[in-house]
Amino acid sequence: MSKNFEVSTLLDYYGMLLTDKQREAVEYYYNDDLSLGEIAENLDISRQGVRDSIKRAETILYEAEEKLKLMKNTKLLRNGLETIRQKIDVIDGLNMKRYRSNDINESIKVILAELDKLDEI
Amino acid sequence: MSKNFEVSTLLDYYGMLLTDKQREAVEYYYNDDLSLGEIAENLDISRQGVRDSIKRAETILYEAEEKLKLMKNTKLLRNGLETIRQKIDVIDGLNMKRYRSNDINESIKVILAELDKLDEI
Repeated sequence: MSKNFEVSTLLDYYGMLLTDKQREAVEYYYNDDLSLGEIAENLDISRQGVRDSIKRAETILYEAEEKLKLMKNTKLLRNGLETIRQKIDVIDGLNMKRYRSNDINESIKVILAELDKLDEI
Repeated sequence: MSKNFEVSTLLDYYGMLLTDKQREAVEYYYNDDLSLGEIAENLDISRQGVRDSIKRAETILYEAEEKLKLMKNTKLLRNGLETIRQKIDVIDGLNMKRYRSNDINESIKVILAELDKLDEI
């Protein structure tokens, strides 16, 4: 069984769509790097049961991303917000040095506060 | 059975998590405003089957939102982007009228392009 470490990231987004057993198995396997045997012992199920849980969980995680695109869209959002923040810093720097406009300062302040809020979602 | 029209919005986000039958029943009921009897006829199942499908679908939709918060976060995102756009317009207006800085113009252009991209997600 090959490990695809994207699963670990998908788990952050869609872990709550899994059953407790599926989530535990995937966490042990991808986050804690336990062997199938060790996981089987921890969960008190067979090695084949662990393998099935992980395979089923991976299918659910990938289907959820295929349908909802949370991981992809979150990356786009983070990149977009970062670009906006950089350009606001450019405008802010110019305003501090050259134009000294309070109206611009005020708008920059509001935009930075919004960017901080959007970083939280 | 009372109609909660939030379901229609949740359907836009999480409809793909439903089975075809569940989704069709909910669409007929909330989007097309058909009666349970009409839906039963269209889907060739019993009225009770329709009722069960819709109830089950609603549970899935609300649980998905509870877990993933796509509807809530999308609202926050749209509001945040709108506020940023308004403040960029303020800065743009001031720059056009008073400061005439190409460096500011260039940054505004990049920010507006990013906002357009983020509006698409």
